[in-house]
Amino acid sequence: MFVHNKRLQYTVRVAGPNPGLANLMLEQFGGPQGELAAACRYFTQAVAEDDPGRKDLLFDIATEELSHLEVIGSIVAMLNKGAKGQLAEAVESEAELYRSLTGGGNDSHTTALLYGGGPALTNSAGVPWTAAYIDTIGEPTADLRSNIAAEARAKIVYERLINVTDDPGIRDALGFLMTREIAHQQSFEKALYSMTPNFPPGKLPGDARFTNVYFNMSQGEGDARGPWNSDDNFKFVSDRDAQQAIDGGGEASVKLTGDEQKLLRQLAERTASDPTSDPMTGAELGMGGELAAGREADSTAREPSGR
Amino acid sequence: MFVHNKRLQYTVRVAGPNPGLANLMLEQFGGPQGELAAACRYFTQAVAEDDPGRKDLLFDIATEELSHLEVIGSIVAMLNKGAKGQLAEAVESEAELYRSLTGGGNDSHTTALLYGGGPALTNSAGVPWTAAYIDTIGEPTADLRSNIAAEARAKIVYERLINVTDDPGIRDALGFLMTREIAHQQSFEKALYSMTPNFPPGKLPGDARFTNVYFNMSQGEGDARGPWNSDDNFKFVSDRDAQQAIDGGGEASVKLTGDEQKLLRQLAERTASDPTSDPMTGAELGMGGELAAGREADSTAREPSGR
Amino acid sequence: MFVHNKRLQYTVRVAGPNPGLANLMLEQFGGPQGELAAACRYFTQAVAEDDPGRKDLLFDIATEELSHLEVIGSIVAMLNKGAKGQLAEAVESEAELYRSLTGGGNDSHTTALLYGGGPALTNSAGVPWTAAYIDTIGEPTADLRSNIAAEARAKIVYERLINVTDDPGIRDALGFLMTREIAHQQSFEKALYSMTPNFPPGKLPGDARFTNVYFNMSQGEGDARGPWNSDDNFKFVSDRDAQQAIDGGGEASVKLTGDEQKLLRQLAERTASDPTSDPMTGAELGMGGELAAGREADSTAREPSGR
Amino acid sequence: MFVHNKRLQYTVRVAGPNPGLANLMLEQFGGPQGELAAACRYFTQAVAEDDPGRKDLLFDIATEELSHLEVIGSIVAMLNKGAKGQLAEAVESEAELYRSLTGGGNDSHTTALLYGGGPALTNSAGVPWTAAYIDTIGEPTADLRSNIAAEARAKIVYERLINVTDDPGIRDALGFLMTREIAHQQSFEKALYSMTPNFPPGKLPGDARFTNVYFNMSQGEGDARGPWNSDDNFKFVSDRDAQQAIDGGGEASVKLTGDEQKLLRQLAERTASDPTSDPMTGAELGMGGELAAGREADSTAREPSGR
Amino acid sequence: MFVHNKRLQYTVRVAGPNPGLANLMLEQFGGPQGELAAACRYFTQAVAEDDPGRKDLLFDIATEELSHLEVIGSIVAMLNKGAKGQLAEAVESEAELYRSLTGGGNDSHTTALLYGGGPALTNSAGVPWTAAYIDTIGEPTADLRSNIAAEARAKIVYERLINVTDDPGIRDALGFLMTREIAHQQSFEKALYSMTPNFPPGKLPGDARFTNVYFNMSQGEGDARGPWNSDDNFKFVSDRDAQQAIDGGGEASVKLTGDEQKLLRQLAERTASDPTSDPMTGAELGMGGELAAGREADSTAREPSGR
Amino acid sequence: MFVHNKRLQYTVRVAGPNPGLANLMLEQFGGPQGELAAACRYFTQAVAEDDPGRKDLLFDIATEELSHLEVIGSIVAMLNKGAKGQLAEAVESEAELYRSLTGGGNDSHTTALLYGGGPALTNSAGVPWTAAYIDTIGEPTADLRSNIAAEARAKIVYERLINVTDDPGIRDALGFLMTREIAHQQSFEKALYSMTPNFPPGKLPGDARFTNVYFNMSQGEGDARGPWNSDDNFKFVSDRDAQQAIDGGGEASVKLTGDEQKLLRQLAERTASDPTSDPMTGAELGMGGELAAGREADSTAREPSGR
Repeated sequence: MFVHNKRLQYTVRVAGPNPGLANLMLEQFGGPQGELAAACRYFTQAVAEDDPGRKDLLFDIATEELSHLEVIGSIVAMLNKGAKGQLAEAVESEAELYRSLTGGGNDSHTTALLYGGGPALTNSAGVPWTAAYIDTIGEPTADLRSNIAAEARAKIVYERLINVTDDPGIRDALGFLMTREIAHQQSFEKALYSMTPNFPPGKLPGDARFTNVYFNMSQGEGDARGPWNSDDNFKFVSDRDAQQAIDGGGEASVKLTGDEQKLLRQLAERTASDPTSDPMTGAELGMGGELAAGREADSTAREPSGR
Repeated sequence: MFVHNKRLQYTVRVAGPNPGLANLMLEQFGGPQGELAAACRYFTQAVAEDDPGRKDLLFDIATEELSHLEVIGSIVAMLNKGAKGQLAEAVESEAELYRSLTGGGNDSHTTALLYGGGPALTNSAGVPWTAAYIDTIGEPTADLRSNIAAEARAKIVYERLINVTDDPGIRDALGFLMTREIAHQQSFEKALYSMTPNFPPGKLPGDARFTNVYFNMSQGEGDARGPWNSDDNFKFVSDRDAQQAIDGGGEASVKLTGDEQKLLRQLAERTASDPTSDPMTGAELGMGGELAAGREADSTAREPSGR
Repeated sequence: MFVHNKRLQYTVRVAGPNPGLANLMLEQFGGPQGELAAACRYFTQAVAEDDPGRKDLLFDIATEELSHLEVIGSIVAMLNKGAKGQLAEAVESEAELYRSLTGGGNDSHTTALLYGGGPALTNSAGVPWTAAYIDTIGEPTADLRSNIAAEARAKIVYERLINVTDDPGIRDALGFLMTREIAHQQSFEKALYSMTPNFPPGKLPGDARFTNVYFNMSQGEGDARGPWNSDDNFKFVSDRDAQQAIDGGGEASVKLTGDEQKLLRQLAERTASDPTSDPMTGAELGMGGELAAGREADSTAREPSGR
Repeated sequence: MFVHNKRLQYTVRVAGPNPGLANLMLEQFGGPQGELAAACRYFTQAVAEDDPGRKDLLFDIATEELSHLEVIGSIVAMLNKGAKGQLAEAVESEAELYRSLTGGGNDSHTTALLYGGGPALTNSAGVPWTAAYIDTIGEPTADLRSNIAAEARAKIVYERLINVTDDPGIRDALGFLMTREIAHQQSFEKALYSMTPNFPPGKLPGDARFTNVYFNMSQGEGDARGPWNSDDNFKFVSDRDAQQAIDGGGEASVKLTGDEQKLLRQLAERTASDPTSDPMTGAELGMGGELAAGREADSTAREPSGR
Repeated sequence: MFVHNKRLQYTVRVAGPNPGLANLMLEQFGGPQGELAAACRYFTQAVAEDDPGRKDLLFDIATEELSHLEVIGSIVAMLNKGAKGQLAEAVESEAELYRSLTGGGNDSHTTALLYGGGPALTNSAGVPWTAAYIDTIGEPTADLRSNIAAEARAKIVYERLINVTDDPGIRDALGFLMTREIAHQQSFEKALYSMTPNFPPGKLPGDARFTNVYFNMSQGEGDARGPWNSDDNFKFVSDRDAQQAIDGGGEASVKLTGDEQKLLRQLAERTASDPTSDPMTGAELGMGGELAAGREADSTAREPSGR
Repeated sequence: MFVHNKRLQYTVRVAGPNPGLANLMLEQFGGPQGELAAACRYFTQAVAEDDPGRKDLLFDIATEELSHLEVIGSIVAMLNKGAKGQLAEAVESEAELYRSLTGGGNDSHTTALLYGGGPALTNSAGVPWTAAYIDTIGEPTADLRSNIAAEARAKIVYERLINVTDDPGIRDALGFLMTREIAHQQSFEKALYSMTPNFPPGKLPGDARFTNVYFNMSQGEGDARGPWNSDDNFKFVSDRDAQQAIDGGGEASVKLTGDEQKLLRQLAERTASDPTSDPMTGAELGMGGELAAGREADSTAREPSGR
C-alpha cells in the first residue's frame, strides 16, 4: 500500500515563472523517458515478480520514482504559476495574453489552454503519455536489461534539461533526480548479474549455427570492423548469396486443401492484372490538354487490335 | 540505399492455414517487440550516428531486421491464405464463415475483416504499431543499452511463440529469428563496451552525495537485501524521515511578482472551498427517499444560522 | 513523497488461476475507468492545486487509488500465476499450450505472449493506457465535476466485474474497491459544493440570451418533454428557421487584404471544378465491358462539341 | 437521420487571417474538450438509450454540438484563409513563407504543412483526436454525470479562448458557444435528477463498512479538514496501521494445483537472484579507468573464496 | 530479403544547420504522408499479394520508399548536426541554449530534448508515427486506389516543403523525391486499370436501386449541381421525406425473447427519468446566493404537493 | 447547421441479439474504414473548401455518412440489447454471465464491460477511433483521390460483413450502406475529373528526368513486367549502380561553422568506439560458468599488453 507524506523528497525552489521552460520539463513528467513511465515500469514488474529480492527492489524503486514524479510535477506547477493566474483571471488585455501564451516558442500554449497551467501527462510536444512506452514483458533477464536502459535514457534527458536551465534551484533539483537514475541503474545491474546465467535471456538456447554469425548487410564505403563483428567473435558473412536463403529455399509456402486452392485460384482469376495490356488510366485522363487527348485517341485506336 | 532480393533470408514452410496462430505471430510483425520496431530503432540511430563503427553496425542490423520482418510477415500471410480466399470469395454459408472467423478465440477476426488476411502492422490484440515503441534518444551509451534490452525482449517473445506452435516449419523459422536476436545482442554489447567509459551514460557526472544511496521505500514483511542494496555497495536508508526532504526543506516554491501574487490571491478567493460549511450535494439530492428529504430539511434549517 | 508498505490495503484471495478472468480485470488496472486513470487524475490536480483543503483531499484520494491499483494488479497477477509458469517453462505440448492460451475467448493471449502473464497497463482489449483518458483541465469547478463522474463510472465497471465472477475472494476485494468509489464520490461532491457559487463553472458569465434556450434539434416520432427542456426551465425552440443563424447572418467570412484575395482567386481558378462538364472518370474506365466502351465512345464523341 | 442546412447556427465574422490563433481554436474542434468529442459522446449514448426522454435529449444536444463543430471549424478555416493561398500558390519567397509558417510560436506550422490550412481534427498541439476522449459507458447515472462534467470543461476552454482573442467577431461567436455549454449542463442536470434515486450509481449497493470512511493517506504539514472528510460525514482514519490490510491479511494469494506449483518452483529456481553474491556488472565494466580495474581485480580475487 | 548499400539514392547537400527546418522535414519522415508510411503500405500489400505482377511492383516501390526514408532522414540529421553537438557538449550558456532550442517557433525543442537531434519517427508536431496511417485492407482494387491517393498526398506535402526552403541542396533532393511520387502514382494507375473490371471494387454488385442516386442532404444558399450529381448521371433526391426511411420504416428493432424483454423492462423501470418532475439539481445548488435560495424554497414548497 | 429527424435513413430489423456479431459491426462504426471516418473526412474538407461545387458535394456526402453512422450504430445497439439487460440487471449466475460475455470468441467482452453494450467508437478489436485515420490534406486533387479510395475500402469492408451474416434484416441494411459507397465513389470521380488538369496533383511540375523512370528495386525469381513498368511507359532501370546515387554523389553533407565542427569533434572523441579493443561485455558476464570464467581470465590477461 502506498502512503503519502506532504514533504517532497527534494526541495523545489524556482526563481520565477517561465511557461516555456515548464513545457520542456514535461518531458520528464509525461514524456516517454519520464518518471511516470519509470514508476509504471517497475510497479508492473514488482506486482508480478515472485523472486523476493527483485520484488522488493522493484517496489523500492517504483515508489521512489513516484516521489520523483511529484518533484518534477511541482517544478512544472511552480513555473506555470504566473500563467495560471493570468489565464484564469484574464486581467491582461487579450492581445498581451495571446502573446504571452504563444511567445514561448514551444507548446506551452497547449498546457495553458487545455490544462490551465497544471502539470499535464504529456511530453514537451503535448503528446499524451501512453503505456506503449512501457516495455515490461514479464521475464526478469529481459526486464532488468530494459530497466538498465531506461535509467540510462532518463539520465540523459535530465542532463539535457539541466543544460537548458540557468535557474539554480531547478538545476539543483534536476541534479538530484539525474543522480538517482545513476544509482538505480547500478542496483538493476547488480540484480541482473546476481542471476546466473542471465544470457541468453530466457530458457531456450539459440541455434548454434547462427548464434555467432554476423551478416554484413550494409556495404560500401564506410564498411567497418570492430569487436562487434570481428573474426574473433563472429563468423563474418559478406557474400550477398550467403546472406539470403540461408537454409536453402528462400521461399514461403503453405499446404492447402483442394478447396482452399480452388478458392484462391478463383480469387486470382477474378483479380488478375493483365501484363500485356496498356490501359488508359485516371492519371492520363487527368493530365488534360493534348497529352490526354493523344492518349485517348491512342487508346481508342488500339482497342480493336488489342483487347 | 536499400535493395531487395526476392528470396527470403530464411525459408518459410507452413503446414497449413491457421488464422488464430497467424494472429499470435503478428506480435513479432507489428507488436512492440517485433521486427518493425527493431528495424526502425536501429535505422533511426544509424542515420544520425557519426561514429563510423557504430554507424555501420546499426545499418547492418537494421537491414537484417527488415529482412526478418519479411520472414515473419510471410508466415502470417501463409497462415491466413485459406481465410483470405474464403472471405473474398464467400462460398461458404455466412454462418460457417462467421464461425470460422470468430472461432479462433482471439483477434483473428479483425485481421480478416479489416485487413483481408494480410499481415497487419498491429500486435496480436489488433493495436496498431506506434513509434512510441521506439526508445532511440540519440546518445550512444543509452541507445546501445536500449538495443541490448530490445534484443533480449524480442528473444523472449520468439521463445513464447515457439512454445505455442507445433508446426515444424514455423518452429524452424522462428528458431532462426530467435537466434539472430542473441547474435545481435552480442554485437551491441561489444559496441557498448568498446566505448570507454560508458558509465554513467552521458557527460555530466552524478552528485556524489546521492550516487550510491539506496532508499528502502517499500517496507514490511518481504523486505530483502542483496547486492543491489547491500551495505558494500550502497548507503542503505530506511528511516522514513531521512528519505524525505533530503536537502532540508521539502517544499515547492516560486518567486512571484506583486502582480502575479495579486492575481493568484484573487483566483484563490474566487475558487476557495469553505471548510466550515456542510453543503448539500448532488449525491444527497440523488439518494432520493427519506435520506435526502431529511438532509434537505437539515440544510434548509441550517441556512439562516450559518451561511 | 510516497512510501510503500508491503501489505495491501485489502486482502486478495483468489480461488484459482483463470487467465480469461484476469484479462477482464485489466479493465480496472489499465482501462479508461481504472485505477491508474484515477490516481493520475487526482495526482495531477493535487500538484497544481493551491486551495489547501482541495489539495489535501486530492493527495489523499490519489494515494488511495494507487493502493487500489496495487490490489487490482495483484488480482490479475494471481489469476495469471498458472499461465505464467506454463508459458515460461513450456512443459505442456505446444498444441495444449496454444489451446490454453487462446481458449479464454478473449484477449488473454496477448497478456500471455506480450506481458508474460504480468498485469499490463492495457484495458481488456489489449489497448495501452493513454493519458488521453485523463480529463483534468486545471479549474476546480470543472475538475471536481469530472472527478464525481469518474467515480461514478468506476463504480459501474466494478459492478459489472463483480457480476461476471463467482470467485468469493475476488468478489470480496472488488466489493471493497467498488465501495470506495462511492465514498470518494461523496467527498468530491462535498468539495464541489463547498465552493460557492460553483455554477456556471469558471469566471465569465453566459450570454443571458442563450443560457436558458433549448433547441429541439432532433424531431419526429419520439420527441419528448421533461424538466430538461420544459417551458418552466427553458425557452423551447422547435422552429427550424429559428434554430439557425440565430444572430441573423449564418455565414462565415474573413476580411482579406488585396494580396490575399488575389492569391485565393488564383488558387480557385487553378483548382476550379467545371460543373458543365461530364468527364469520363476512372470509375467508368474501370467498369470494363460494354458499359465503359459505350461511355468511352460517348466521351470521344462529345469532345469536339464541348471541351 | 441528419440533414444539413447551409446557414451556420451562429455567424462567423473574422477580422483577418491569423494562423497562430487558428491553431489555438483547434482545441475546440479536435481537442479533448471540443465539439467533436461532445457530439460523439452524446450521439453514442443516444443510439443506445431506451428511455424516451433521455434518448430525445441526447439526440437534440448531439445534433447541436455537430452544428457547433461547424461553427468552430469555420472560424479556423477563416483564420487560415490567408495561409492557405500563400502555401498553395507559393508566391512569397521561400524564406518569408518559412517565417510566416513558423512565426506563430505554436503548432500552426503543422496545420499548414500537413492539412493545408484546413481545420484538422487535432488539438492545438497537433495531437489527433481519439475516441479515448469519450467516456460513455452505457449507464445513465454515470453518463449523465460525465456529460455534466464535460459541459463544464468545455465552458472553461471556451472562456480561455475568449481571453486570448480580441477579434470581436470571434469573441461573439465563442461567447455563444460557451453559453450553450451552460445551457446543456443545466439540461443534463435536470435529466440526472429526474432519475430517483441516482446515487450511488448503478444497481449494487456499497458495503456499508466502507461507504463513509475517509482514509487520510497524505499526511504532514498541510493536512486539512472540511466537509469532504469531516467527522459529521465520514469516519476519518489517520492511523497508518488501520489504513492497510483493512480486512486483516493484506496479502495476495491464489490456490494452485500441484502441477502449477511445481512449474512455478522450477521457474523460480531458474531465475533466482543470489542475494549473497556481489557480481561484477556491466556498469562496473563500463566505468573504465582505475575504478573498474580495481573492481575487476576485486572480483577476480573474490572468485576463489566465494562462488 | 533487403540489403543496403552505403550510398544514398540521391545526394543530400545541406547549406547549414537549421533545427526548425529539420522539424518541418520530419513530416515526410515520420508523418502520416511520409516515407515510412509509404514503405509500410506497399510492403504489407506485397507480402500478402498473390498476383505476380502486382507483387513485384509493390516490392519494387516499397524498397524505393525505404531508400527515400533514408534520404529524408539524412536531411533531418544534417539540419540538426549543429544542435546535436551543442546539446550534448553544452558549451554555450544555458540561457543561449534554451533560446536556440525554443527559438525555432516550432517543435524542434522536442526533437532536441527527446531525440538528441536525431531523425525521430514523428511528424512535425512531435506526434509518433502510427500504423493507423496505413490503409491497406488486402483487396487490390481498393488498395491500388489507396496507393494512388497516397502518392498524390505525398507529392503535395513535398511541394509544400519545397515552398518553405531556400536551401538549394535540399530543394534539389526534395524535388527528386516529389517527382518519384508522380512516377509511382503512374505505375499504380497502370496496375489498377490492368485489372478489368475494377469497378465497383470487390465482388458483390451494388443494389441497383441505390447505385445512381444522389441525396441532396445539405441544402440552402450554395446548393450546386455538376457532373457529380447531374440528372444525366444520378437520380437527384432533394425532398427531405424521400431521403429518410427510404425503404419505408425508418426504425430500429430487434426480436427479443420473453426473458430478455423482462430484463430490459426491469432496467427501464429502474433507470426511468420522470418527465413530470422538476427536480432541484446540482447546478441550482451551485448557483449560490438568492437564486439558489429561491429555488430551494421553491423546491421545498413543491415537495408536499408533488412527490 | 445539422438537424436530426427521428427516422433512420434505412430501416434496421435485427432477428435477434448477438453480441459477437455486434462486435464485428463496430468495424464500420468506429473502425478506420467506418462511417465516422467517412463523415469526418468529408466534413473537414467541406468546411475548408472554396469551390462552390465541391463544397456542396462534400457537405451532402458528409451528412449522409453521419446518417449511415446512425444506421450502423443502431444495428450494434440492437444486437447488444440482450447483453445490455443481462449485464445491468445481473440475474443470471455469474458463471453463466461470464460465459456469455467471453463466448463470442472476439472482443465483445470489452464492449460489454466498458461500454455496457452501447455502440463504442472502436473497431472490432476494441481500438479507439483516431483522427489519424483521416487523410484530408486540404488539396482537392489529392483529397478527392483519397475520398475515392476511402469509398472503395468501405465498400469492401461492408462486403465482408455481409459475407459473415445470415440475418436478412442486417444483410438488407448493410447492402444499402455498401451500395451508397459505390454511388459516392462515382460522385467523387466526377468531381475529380471535372478539374482539368488534375494530374500531377498540385502546382509544381515533376522533374522530367525522373517522372517516367521505373527502378526495379526488387530482383530475383518473380521479377515481372506489365504496363506499370513497361518500356512503352517508363525507362526501366535494373542496374544496381544506376539505381543509387542517381545524381552522382550519394552522400549526405552539411556545411558547419568552425565552432560547430569543434563541438562535434569533441563529441565524437568522447563517445568514440574503439574498433581495436575486444572488451569483456555484460553478455559474457552473464553467460556464467566456465565460459564466462575463461573470458574473464582472458580479459584480465589481455589488460597489460593492450589497453
